[in-house]
Amino acid sequence: MSYPLLNQINSPKDLKRLTKEELVLLASELRDFIIDVVATKEGHLGASLGVVELTIALHYVFKTPDDLLVWDVGHQAYGHKILTGRRDIFHTNRRKDGISGFPKRSESNYDAFGVGHSSTSISAALGMAIASQLKGDLNKQHIAVIGDASIAAGMAFEGLNHAGVTQANLIVILNDNAIGIDPSVGALKNYLTKAKVGVKPKQDNIIEALNFNYKGPVDGHDLKALIKVLNELKNKKGPQFLHVITKKGKGLKKAEEDQVRYHAPGKFNKATGEILPKNNHDLPPKFQDVFGLSLVELAKNNEKIVGITPAMPTGSSLKYMMHTFPDRAFDVGIAEQHAVTFAAGLATQGLTVFCAIYSTFLQRAIDQVIHDVALQNLPVIFCVDRAGLVGNDGATHHGVFDIALLKSIPNMIVATPSTTIELRNLLFTASKGLGQPIAIRYPRGRGHIKKWQKEFTKIEIGKAIELKKGSSIAILNLGHLIHTVEKAVNNHPQKQQLGIYDMRFAKPIDLEMLTYIFKTYQHIITLEDASIEGGFGQSVQALAQQYKFSGRIEVLGIPDQFIDHGSTEELHQETGIDATNLIKKINLLVK
Amino acid sequence: MSYPLLNQINSPKDLKRLTKEELVLLASELRDFIIDVVATKEGHLGASLGVVELTIALHYVFKTPDDLLVWDVGHQAYGHKILTGRRDIFHTNRRKDGISGFPKRSESNYDAFGVGHSSTSISAALGMAIASQLKGDLNKQHIAVIGDASIAAGMAFEGLNHAGVTQANLIVILNDNAIGIDPSVGALKNYLTKAKVGVKPKQDNIIEALNFNYKGPVDGHDLKALIKVLNELKNKKGPQFLHVITKKGKGLKKAEEDQVRYHAPGKFNKATGEILPKNNHDLPPKFQDVFGLSLVELAKNNEKIVGITPAMPTGSSLKYMMHTFPDRAFDVGIAEQHAVTFAAGLATQGLTVFCAIYSTFLQRAIDQVIHDVALQNLPVIFCVDRAGLVGNDGATHHGVFDIALLKSIPNMIVATPSTTIELRNLLFTASKGLGQPIAIRYPRGRGHIKKWQKEFTKIEIGKAIELKKGSSIAILNLGHLIHTVEKAVNNHPQKQQLGIYDMRFAKPIDLEMLTYIFKTYQHIITLEDASIEGGFGQSVQALAQQYKFSGRIEVLGIPDQFIDHGSTEELHQETGIDATNLIKKINLLVK
Repeated sequence: MSYPLLNQINSPKDLKRLTKEELVLLASELRDFIIDVVATKEGHLGASLGVVELTIALHYVFKTPDDLLVWDVGHQAYGHKILTGRRDIFHTNRRKDGISGFPKRSESNYDAFGVGHSSTSISAALGMAIASQLKGDLNKQHIAVIGDASIAAGMAFEGLNHAGVTQANLIVILNDNAIGIDPSVGALKNYLTKAKVGVKPKQDNIIEALNFNYKGPVDGHDLKALIKVLNELKNKKGPQFLHVITKKGKGLKKAEEDQVRYHAPGKFNKATGEILPKNNHDLPPKFQDVFGLSLVELAKNNEKIVGITPAMPTGSSLKYMMHTFPDRAFDVGIAEQHAVTFAAGLATQGLTVFCAIYSTFLQRAIDQVIHDVALQNLPVIFCVDRAGLVGNDGATHHGVFDIALLKSIPNMIVATPSTTIELRNLLFTASKGLGQPIAIRYPRGRGHIKKWQKEFTKIEIGKAIELKKGSSIAILNLGHLIHTVEKAVNNHPQKQQLGIYDMRFAKPIDLEMLTYIFKTYQHIITLEDASIEGGFGQSVQALAQQYKFSGRIEVLGIPDQFIDHGSTEELHQETGIDATNLIKKINLLVK
Repeated sequence: MSYPLLNQINSPKDLKRLTKEELVLLASELRDFIIDVVATKEGHLGASLGVVELTIALHYVFKTPDDLLVWDVGHQAYGHKILTGRRDIFHTNRRKDGISGFPKRSESNYDAFGVGHSSTSISAALGMAIASQLKGDLNKQHIAVIGDASIAAGMAFEGLNHAGVTQANLIVILNDNAIGIDPSVGALKNYLTKAKVGVKPKQDNIIEALNFNYKGPVDGHDLKALIKVLNELKNKKGPQFLHVITKKGKGLKKAEEDQVRYHAPGKFNKATGEILPKNNHDLPPKFQDVFGLSLVELAKNNEKIVGITPAMPTGSSLKYMMHTFPDRAFDVGIAEQHAVTFAAGLATQGLTVFCAIYSTFLQRAIDQVIHDVALQNLPVIFCVDRAGLVGNDGATHHGVFDIALLKSIPNMIVATPSTTIELRNLLFTASKGLGQPIAIRYPRGRGHIKKWQKEFTKIEIGKAIELKKGSSIAILNLGHLIHTVEKAVNNHPQKQQLGIYDMRFAKPIDLEMLTYIFKTYQHIITLEDASIEGGFGQSVQALAQQYKFSGRIEVLGIPDQFIDHGSTEELHQETGIDATNLIKKINLLVK
């Protein structure tokens, strides 16, 4: 494909030289370019296709990067990246040492705010707008582009509620396509659905009630209409709100038709949109599917079981439960705080509540875990998905802080299954009633076991297991890296010296096993796919000091820094939780 | 005073025997009883006085505890406690081993959900309502009573947004008195202010837009009107919303006139309402006032300084900054998530942002600290107020998890001043620009230094100080308990053996000082007013193991359990962070 217009755009300044008709052609080229690259390099597709016209219109009308543009979440910012000097490196998107899949301040001046988690844009842009006001810069504009799923999160409401009583030059643009990653839910969504292009909601306008000027809805694929309305808003003072209606996946028929699948479709045929078949045949299943399918099995035999996801039914595989028991599984939208306290409310009535939240998003509900669940000792079962390094989504999405955050909470059990079968049995064990809350953390992606549908068996809480007895070095594994450990040990020439322990619980730690290890071994290596600071290894070190274990302890985990994007293998290597580093540490200690 | 009617009420059942006229008299008795007890025993006053009629009406109309009643925050639940069997022990309110100042599940069947932090009631009550629905109990009612300050928090919006698409039997009662602890703020508050008793907002009804049936506003002090409207709502199905307008402090003239001061006035004359003078003359100032006044001093010389509080201008003393520089200090309402990302937005524009949040409420914004501040390495200055055990507010309010939560976050400095002067100098140091975020944690209440207004001096980040050299036992103090340490050591017969170290930073830890201590001393005692699990002492233990320090380390801090209410002295004693336990540990280790 050739991109005669797009190839001339090295910064938004170049847009201003184009005629309106050329801009329309540019939109078409930009859309093709995104499809072209994502078809082979993978990444998020639908969201960026939906805002091609909006992206061009924003950079055409406003004076970026002086005017500050904040994209909420950032899945939709590919066009923005391509138009702001990153066209020629766009093929490195989400790869190690390449550009990030999300806007990132350190990557470009045009990325006014780093994003990844939803619903931060209004607060951030308001902060920028108030800063401009304080500096006496009353002409600068500050724009937050936020989707209809993201604006329903509480945090976005907090931002609107504050902005509405300021005179800040803030423009909130609602990119309304009725879908986040999965279809949007909630009363606000139903309300928004009533709005049609050109037909403003006359009654009960929530946005006007919050003291914003409301414009729209406008057709987000009508570039000239967008330019016109943005030009009107540009010179207005005070908080403005523009309702734009778009279609996720716009311009690629298959992506428009199956918006969930084409959110991040993997490789596809750029001409037809057909997703290329993956050779998944006979691969072991994902931890997510083992969670989702096992939950359905358990729910069939126990009508007290209910499931909750904040906006990730597909990603977490709670969709299976939602399909089988639609009344007993709840997608509450992007609302982690509500999800956890809603779970607590259900648990007070004796229900067995599975609350599936990605580790990185559980950070949004730490207070609710402490204050509403743990303090009342309600036996909510947190299924902490995508725990550990998640790969190409990068720094905003790694789930590495959960152990440190959860470990200090009284009453909380922190379990870390090393295999999909252990996950399955922990779900079973928790469903039988523990009398206290539990967090079960597991990684993104596939396990190593094909025949996972074994009969359920109970796991004793706080009990580690000795997988292999050794003579001088004990390897204390926490979680899914057990496969790495077993491979490294089994191929090691001094394998008889090496013991392997599947510790399984970050809290409570199996003290009996640990004191036995202290007595039996000279040195210890701990391994976890989580932050070292505040993690499991540090607990072992502290206990070792207490129990006067004077050997060396090598703690392998995520170092005290934010880790960028890359494949999980690359990132395991970078952070030293891979086989090579493990073997290096073994060799350091082995006799 | 005598309470002829109130004395007959041992449970809500007894209410149903009274006539409407008697109920009105009962309201008057209940109000007097609350005033009577709180005048001498202290506690929260204004909120409970404002809902006396509502409390009686709810228990009269509904069948509690079968119908489930959730009080948001819980400051207003004194009348509820008194009517539900706790009249005769109400004088033990907030005292050690007495009843809690907040509803608490373990205290009474009538306390359907434990509260303390705001805006949880809708989510919790919705969980209960959905549970009833699943059990086929379609007549049960589930009621959330929430104030106008609390309903503006994002979490409450998330709850409403979910509830609006359910058929759950949920009644949300908005107790609208235009004030939280400080006056309510935000666009929603301005919107609500337009509603008057009997005059429903016709246009832009946010609540109806979210698919709730809206009733009201009704006069919250007209008991008969309340009973009438609640009886109407009782048998309705699906989500209902009742807007009630009340006056905080109702019935005590002074409390009505000065609602901020009478939120929790301390001891007062029950006849006149006059607050009894405290003998504060010549006492050292509170950490809060040192923060608030020092910030004003710094802001006078640096126009880039701005301050943020989420709804605690009085409690945090940011009120001084708000008074002196109204354009540069922001009360954003109960919106911790927004507060932190708003701070990040301001910081991107080069402003020096002080964000004052109580430790217990910072739990609400951990994700924003990680994702919006630390990941972008924005130099936001978090002033973490009420860190450590807070006393009579109890388990929901202790600020004991912050060190564990913050320590694992890359780029974050965690400073713990031991005196008000150190606090002041840390504020100064941070204001000069650190190039990274810092959390400065300090306790509720007074320090020990009267002459605190010394010239500002810089504190070296990550540097501990040796306060007293000893020979065999090093006491590593983190934070404000230094006074306890100094007293204990100075009165100890073997004081020459005891070294005292003011560690000042939980992160980064002064490794140079620590390795010197490991070499110099035989044993170590660490002391912090924070959770042991994930705390500073555990870091010292882990490092000691690494550096082969084989002496004993006694870690003093908050054990791994939730701590109830009591005076701070009592709680320090209970948790062993008092002088007695410190001396006991010293005596164990001393030669």
